[in-house]
Amino acid sequence: MRATLSLRSTAGQATRTVEDLDPDPKNGTFFVRYSSTYPFKSHNVNALEREDPELQTCQHQCRHQERFDEREQRECEQRCEEYHKEKQWRQREREDEEEEEEEEQYEYNPYLFDEESWKTTIDEEEGRVRVLERFTKKSKLLRGIDNFRVSIYEANPRTFSVPNHWDAESVSFVTRGYGTISLVKHDNRETFNIKRGDILRIPAGTIVYLVNKDNHEKLQIIDFVHAFSVPGHFETFFGPGGEGNPESFFRAFNIEILTAAFSVCREKVERLFGQTKMGVFLRASEKQIRELTKHASSSEGGLWLFGGGNKSSGAFNLFDKKPSISNNYGKLHEVKPHEFKDLPKLDVGVSFVNISRGAMAGPYFNTRAVKVAVVVQGKGFFEMACPHEHQEGQWQREKESGPHYHKVRGNMSPGVVFVTLPGHPVVVVASNDENLQVVVFKINSEHNERIPVAGNENVIQQLEKEAKELSFGLPEKEVDEVFNNQRESYFFPGPHQRQRHGGGRASA
Amino acid sequence: MRATLSLRSTAGQATRTVEDLDPDPKNGTFFVRYSSTYPFKSHNVNALEREDPELQTCQHQCRHQERFDEREQRECEQRCEEYHKEKQWRQREREDEEEEEEEEQYEYNPYLFDEESWKTTIDEEEGRVRVLERFTKKSKLLRGIDNFRVSIYEANPRTFSVPNHWDAESVSFVTRGYGTISLVKHDNRETFNIKRGDILRIPAGTIVYLVNKDNHEKLQIIDFVHAFSVPGHFETFFGPGGEGNPESFFRAFNIEILTAAFSVCREKVERLFGQTKMGVFLRASEKQIRELTKHASSSEGGLWLFGGGNKSSGAFNLFDKKPSISNNYGKLHEVKPHEFKDLPKLDVGVSFVNISRGAMAGPYFNTRAVKVAVVVQGKGFFEMACPHEHQEGQWQREKESGPHYHKVRGNMSPGVVFVTLPGHPVVVVASNDENLQVVVFKINSEHNERIPVAGNENVIQQLEKEAKELSFGLPEKEVDEVFNNQRESYFFPGPHQRQRHGGGRASA
Amino acid sequence: MRATLSLRSTAGQATRTVEDLDPDPKNGTFFVRYSSTYPFKSHNVNALEREDPELQTCQHQCRHQERFDEREQRECEQRCEEYHKEKQWRQREREDEEEEEEEEQYEYNPYLFDEESWKTTIDEEEGRVRVLERFTKKSKLLRGIDNFRVSIYEANPRTFSVPNHWDAESVSFVTRGYGTISLVKHDNRETFNIKRGDILRIPAGTIVYLVNKDNHEKLQIIDFVHAFSVPGHFETFFGPGGEGNPESFFRAFNIEILTAAFSVCREKVERLFGQTKMGVFLRASEKQIRELTKHASSSEGGLWLFGGGNKSSGAFNLFDKKPSISNNYGKLHEVKPHEFKDLPKLDVGVSFVNISRGAMAGPYFNTRAVKVAVVVQGKGFFEMACPHEHQEGQWQREKESGPHYHKVRGNMSPGVVFVTLPGHPVVVVASNDENLQVVVFKINSEHNERIPVAGNENVIQQLEKEAKELSFGLPEKEVDEVFNNQRESYFFPGPHQRQRHGGGRASA
Repeated sequence: MRATLSLRSTAGQATRTVEDLDPDPKNGTFFVRYSSTYPFKSHNVNALEREDPELQTCQHQCRHQERFDEREQRECEQRCEEYHKEKQWRQREREDEEEEEEEEQYEYNPYLFDEESWKTTIDEEEGRVRVLERFTKKSKLLRGIDNFRVSIYEANPRTFSVPNHWDAESVSFVTRGYGTISLVKHDNRETFNIKRGDILRIPAGTIVYLVNKDNHEKLQIIDFVHAFSVPGHFETFFGPGGEGNPESFFRAFNIEILTAAFSVCREKVERLFGQTKMGVFLRASEKQIRELTKHASSSEGGLWLFGGGNKSSGAFNLFDKKPSISNNYGKLHEVKPHEFKDLPKLDVGVSFVNISRGAMAGPYFNTRAVKVAVVVQGKGFFEMACPHEHQEGQWQREKESGPHYHKVRGNMSPGVVFVTLPGHPVVVVASNDENLQVVVFKINSEHNERIPVAGNENVIQQLEKEAKELSFGLPEKEVDEVFNNQRESYFFPGPHQRQRHGGGRASA
Repeated sequence: MRATLSLRSTAGQATRTVEDLDPDPKNGTFFVRYSSTYPFKSHNVNALEREDPELQTCQHQCRHQERFDEREQRECEQRCEEYHKEKQWRQREREDEEEEEEEEQYEYNPYLFDEESWKTTIDEEEGRVRVLERFTKKSKLLRGIDNFRVSIYEANPRTFSVPNHWDAESVSFVTRGYGTISLVKHDNRETFNIKRGDILRIPAGTIVYLVNKDNHEKLQIIDFVHAFSVPGHFETFFGPGGEGNPESFFRAFNIEILTAAFSVCREKVERLFGQTKMGVFLRASEKQIRELTKHASSSEGGLWLFGGGNKSSGAFNLFDKKPSISNNYGKLHEVKPHEFKDLPKLDVGVSFVNISRGAMAGPYFNTRAVKVAVVVQGKGFFEMACPHEHQEGQWQREKESGPHYHKVRGNMSPGVVFVTLPGHPVVVVASNDENLQVVVFKINSEHNERIPVAGNENVIQQLEKEAKELSFGLPEKEVDEVFNNQRESYFFPGPHQRQRHGGGRASA
Repeated sequence: MRATLSLRSTAGQATRTVEDLDPDPKNGTFFVRYSSTYPFKSHNVNALEREDPELQTCQHQCRHQERFDEREQRECEQRCEEYHKEKQWRQREREDEEEEEEEEQYEYNPYLFDEESWKTTIDEEEGRVRVLERFTKKSKLLRGIDNFRVSIYEANPRTFSVPNHWDAESVSFVTRGYGTISLVKHDNRETFNIKRGDILRIPAGTIVYLVNKDNHEKLQIIDFVHAFSVPGHFETFFGPGGEGNPESFFRAFNIEILTAAFSVCREKVERLFGQTKMGVFLRASEKQIRELTKHASSSEGGLWLFGGGNKSSGAFNLFDKKPSISNNYGKLHEVKPHEFKDLPKLDVGVSFVNISRGAMAGPYFNTRAVKVAVVVQGKGFFEMACPHEHQEGQWQREKESGPHYHKVRGNMSPGVVFVTLPGHPVVVVASNDENLQVVVFKINSEHNERIPVAGNENVIQQLEKEAKELSFGLPEKEVDEVFNNQRESYFFPGPHQRQRHGGGRASA
């Protein structure tokens, strides 16, 4: 194995060990594999690099291997070249990594919103409400969705939360627990049982109150808010309340106005709105909860309450729908805007993605929808190909040199929100420890298509032979070997699973 | 009445007089009433305040009243506490008022546009046109409606105004007078009689001219303009005209262009467009007016001209419609966008509110519509509960401490424009001198609902017993006493009427 | 001819020669004509100007012409006045011209985009792609269309361009050549023959590749792009490709991700995406072109492929449609948005204007549409009446003095883009050398009307007698002499044609 050793010695700064060099039992020579997960970047052996002394040494050795015939000698040289190509790659990847580390100090991921992006607007013993900062606080790239906001509601077991309304419209998803929601309009009140998976559409100005009727579990709801009133901002209005926590909006009026409006004496008004520190989230007695929930309608049995008639507006359960995609590696449940009837047009769809532990979704891209994804459970990361510079001033430069895609990568854990733009290929990978569960709100959803660029139905397969060969500069067979090998669709075994299960690479 | 006197002496800085203390004939003690109209603010007796020496003195006296049995003693102490609560309130109100006075110097009302906000764009002997500044000139809060503008047209009796078109679409309301409007399009001309209450929808680019055919009364029209061409700006284009007043747009073209386009000699073109100071508003002879108006269609008899066929576009009279709401205290006439057919979708509704002298409308809120209200006649004021800080930088603070509603109050008189945002409860009060008449343009009108928070149909009544009790922290009975006492809907006797007529408070 | 001479001597700075003074053979006196093309501006003889010594001299001479009777004397004086009026005009025009020259140094035309506004994003031997800068880079006036962009694609004969998709939607017009376009979606691929005049609508996220199948002619396509994803910006995504030119978006993903997604070994992935400098525009062999184009559908025979069923989305040829307007001076072909079925609503129309050499189109205005015109062939210029100041700060001033229209004029040649706003009257004039051909994309096209202000169907004709007389301050006959003389519609002989052919003025 002289060749191996001489390679190591000339590799110099490489940290590779002998184990990296995988002797080929068939002909006694070697080829190299990496177990690292370096980012995929740059390379090719160009003229200049061919002068690398290591490569020259390697090829020299090939040519002087006594026991090689001409074909073996050529194969040996080719392996040298491949090895060298990989060495170059590693070298550049190392540089890129260093670069990325530096970048991380200055440049942030414009699509990722983590713990720091949430503001707690109500913070009480029995519950809390958090609101995500405006999307454009991260990046101007997101200005197309700046009128949308995300909020999370969380109530302790056996609590009631005080009626209020928003100056905004929302599509809400129950991520946890069992409760009832009451929607009060001018002339009626409707109460619905809600549980994990239920989707609600709450028109602007609807007075809403909620009961967590469970004895043990929290009730958690993610609200996707369309803030059209003051674009990008929404506000909560409490009628009941007093001096504070919550403050009643009635207190903004002159007392004379109120006594006239209610046609009652001043004292009664004062008594009603003069209280303090009552709280938004209140513990309710068993009897109160029984009374508050006893007339609730339910979405069980696939009942579709949305827009059934001009009065109602309720919940249905996403998990009652057959998943659009389902295999061993994940499940996708989704509802499209046209499935919400009789309500003002708000082109938002909702889906729930459950990626099996160690598995991945994509790469794929959306044709029209901007997706806002909220991680509900599990960990993992996403990668997205992004042609945009993050600073506006640098767009120009790109335009003049053709598109360059840099990788945007973000770690995911519960509460993390990430945004994917149309056309941008993206992949989401679950950690090996547990399933990754994500609720996704899709803006511009109606005509959106999900275009897979890998997997059983990937779009590259649609190209004819000549288009493949011209596009990739290789025989169709080699293109197909890459694009036709994956049998699964959309959800795949993840990179770690493949290693453990002896997938792709080991079998090559 | 020792207790009374000792109270006064310890109250110190209070300006209250003996008359404030209203001896209760039934048990010889007292309770306090205010005749002032202090704003309704802050209070409640908390632990710290209970240490107030005045309260302690009062309660001490109760406990040592020889002729009191135990129940009376307890009642006496409670009255002390109530009195003290009110004292605190007054104190804080005084502070708030001082604060407000200070604020008035620095902070302006972002929803109110008064005389200074109008620019006169045409100012002639026989008529004038005024345009309101852009809404965002007041506040970024109004950026959702920044493509809308308001304009007022006013022509003297027996005048003709020169044909022109706008690069914007408008919904117009005739507030005064009798005239005809001619709408000229590519292939036809239509002339309509118009009078107070008529609503017109004028598509962009329609050439319009008007005749005030009355001998005595001015013709006044409010235009609500959707400026989509250059967002937020609209311009007037006069074809007829000369060097100025009005300038003809033909004069922007090279004379060679015009002689070619018209296929006539230069002199004729020069003669037609070479005149000066003709004016936009021109006195017309009786014969001219007769000829200009003789073929006019009319909206009389409830004729709905809007969109009747693909050619027409005219006026109908709002006052021919039955009012949506009507009682002794006011009337509401309204038209919704779906009542305008066959025209490009512009989701604007119009209503006319007539509040009886001394009466009030609301409090209520709109679920979706932003309302732009133009005062046509009368005086009064509005109050709106506003959770927004007026400076963007301060939003953050609010978000972290739950919503706080400050009162936005503005005085109203003819020509004043005020804007109300969705979800924000508002009340409008007419002065005692005359009815308050307001024309309202409603953006996002189609699915809007008006939600009353007081009056016969108020939304709080929809809550079940348990929700009321939990929300208000009081027995249902006490909640209902406030919310179920008012028999009227939407329009109520105002605060001054109630005093005069011995309403609410005096009868308590 | 003493009068003539004395006029010249007092005219002083005028450059006019004796030939300018055209002796009237009928009565021995004179009147003046200009052969210059001064811009049409200001004038009228007002009180002050009557004191001009030249005018006084002239009129004095009239009054003292011995052979004049009273009527002749009056006519002479009137001619003096007309001459004087013209002199004033020339004077002011000269001043205006100087002013304009000065302005040209500081002020640019906010509606015109010339060579400098284009950026070349792909520049290869076999083809190139150019993108026009954002409209708002020129002027805030264009912010209403800032989400639209223009791009030009140009491929050499016998080339293939590599599949890619955009994060934006486009309406495209083939201006030159013969090719095929393949549109790949999730589950199908469609290939269409395209040729000059074909219009295509390409949904966002569609993977597109093109073949120029002609042996000699370039394939040129203008794309009108609706950039909704990141408003105002669109990006190109290449799947095939390597390290660069084009870079593949796959390279943005970690290699481990890709090997997992494709379920293949690392080497195969590297081989496919590791190449360099392949190019976006590739020469294709005869056989490849034959194979790539053999199954293409065609738009021949008026086949309307747009939205025929839920799968297709193809091309139709604008020139198969009967022109909307056609005469000796020009042709207008157009397609309206409702003629594009079953696709997400994008209110864009397309038209092709062919103005004969030396002829002109307009003046006219659009009621709703903003038009973006791309010059394809020929030269000429446009003039537009523009009431906007180009600096925002100056709007105020205008508002207070009534609208003033300045002329916006721009020279046109292939590749120039110009924008016309609704309501703004515009005229386009072709040079005498060749026809002027323009592709026009119309935003807000659905309810738009083209309103002619000159020509056979001009809108002024719709005014009744009294309106004409009041508006123009002249007898109807004189108004009609100008507005009813042109027999043609929309396209007219241009200013130069009229001179050559002895049109309008010479025959007056």
